Amino acid sequence: MQSRSFFRGRLIAIGGNEDKTGERLVLKRVVHEVGKADYKVCVITTASDYPEKRGKDYHRIFRQLGAPEVEVLNITARMQANDRTSVQMIEDADLIFLTGGDQLRLTTIIGGSGLFEAIQNRLEAGALIAGTSAGAAVFSDTMIYEGQSEDGLFKGSVLTTSGFGFVKKIIFDTHFMARGRIGRLVQIVTTNPTCIGVGIGEDSGVILKGDGEAEVIGTGQVIIVDGSDIDHSNIMDIQPGSPIAAENVRIHSLVNGYGYNFKNRRFVAPSNNNPEQRDD
Amino acid sequence: MQSRSFFRGRLIAIGGNEDKTGERLVLKRVVHEVGKADYKVCVITTASDYPEKRGKDYHRIFRQLGAPEVEVLNITARMQANDRTSVQMIEDADLIFLTGGDQLRLTTIIGGSGLFEAIQNRLEAGALIAGTSAGAAVFSDTMIYEGQSEDGLFKGSVLTTSGFGFVKKIIFDTHFMARGRIGRLVQIVTTNPTCIGVGIGEDSGVILKGDGEAEVIGTGQVIIVDGSDIDHSNIMDIQPGSPIAAENVRIHSLVNGYGYNFKNRRFVAPSNNNPEQRDD
Repeated sequence: MQSRSFFRGRLIAIGGNEDKTGERLVLKRVVHEVGKADYKVCVITTASDYPEKRGKDYHRIFRQLGAPEVEVLNITARMQANDRTSVQMIEDADLIFLTGGDQLRLTTIIGGSGLFEAIQNRLEAGALIAGTSAGAAVFSDTMIYEGQSEDGLFKGSVLTTSGFGFVKKIIFDTHFMARGRIGRLVQIVTTNPTCIGVGIGEDSGVILKGDGEAEVIGTGQVIIVDGSDIDHSNIMDIQPGSPIAAENVRIHSLVNGYGYNFKNRRFVAPSNNNPEQRDD
Repeated sequence: MQSRSFFRGRLIAIGGNEDKTGERLVLKRVVHEVGKADYKVCVITTASDYPEKRGKDYHRIFRQLGAPEVEVLNITARMQANDRTSVQMIEDADLIFLTGGDQLRLTTIIGGSGLFEAIQNRLEAGALIAGTSAGAAVFSDTMIYEGQSEDGLFKGSVLTTSGFGFVKKIIFDTHFMARGRIGRLVQIVTTNPTCIGVGIGEDSGVILKGDGEAEVIGTGQVIIVDGSDIDHSNIMDIQPGSPIAAENVRIHSLVNGYGYNFKNRRFVAPSNNNPEQRDD
């Protein structure tokens, strides 16, 4: 993670399909992470095909989870993304939540707008920004927006563009195990091993601090794909559409309570689960 | 690979859905690997739900590819698997081909039979045994027969049983990229890092010699999952159904012309593709 990624707030990237009616482990942790009793939530539904409905759903959910104040921003056109009232809502928010849908809608409509700038400023100033599915994919500077897993290891089959760039060189992919997306991240770390791939399972998430430390939450897995040990790949020698060969891609599977340090690429086991410290 | 796995023949494990009408790269290589002009093929359709049809299909295909003699064994019950005429067909065969379908049908009907013993003897004596999909999964001593990828990293979600055991501690999985099955192999190598996972893509295959050297063929990938570097996992501490954490799973992606040595766990790049030797 580059030093310019530093921010005082926190990012929570959720893998999609988080539990909204049962234990709600992930969403409970999201509101807990705000860190105070009196806070404002702003939900941005731009990624969604049904922004009004999605907005109502999350309004209800966050209220049920105890949020004192929840606003919904149904921004569906660039013009609205510079609207002063909307920007003010972001400036007042302690938790900004980006719903799922299509990440290209987020970047296309909000990218480079006053609203975008306000979100980034809030993150730098200490607010919490959480996103699920498309709302998490957009966190990266390099954002995956298309690519079937079955094509994931064929050169050029994973399409990326510039995301919101809250973090640099960390690529978030979502619905990870359910949609078998490992090939997408392997392709990206093979083409540039500086990048670290983060494949987030459904009902799971990663809490990321500005110093590069991350904690995994939820009921599933987060898969880290680290290409820094790759010794050989054929990526420079093959044509688009050809299958990719790569030697030594390092994978970690993390579950609730485990951590990862993106700065030094270290897997962090919870101390009570550390074999050296087990007493049995 | 244990030393007792040594055999003079060759195994070709195919990931399923190999091209049967176009370039037929994989099947052409299968007949080429027999290594002589005058040879007999024996097709075993036991895994298939439609053995008669499958048998006719492969009979036609192998004849089209120039095989001088093709016999089909539609064994559908254990009693037939000890039939002297069938055993004789195997004893005479230079290439034994196992079709896809359900690998449990293969082990349940043929396991421990006279036919099984004959196949194993032929492999040891120098014959070629090829299998696609279920017909390849059965090669392992530990055979995966059930387990969705989305469940693959939850303890106990991948069901295995004893396969034909032509090779030891090498676990073949098939339709690998198309069905996103990486989690199944990660679970297996985490529970026993002695095992090496081999995830074979569709229209792709692995040619494996008795000394542990392997070559990849076809239009897709073969993914090697090596758990020998795993430093930490939670597998001993969690209940069945809980998500698996694992640190440092090593993955290689191999394509046509690449190799892997199972004895010393080495990725082998083709020499004309070796960066050190490139002249540009």
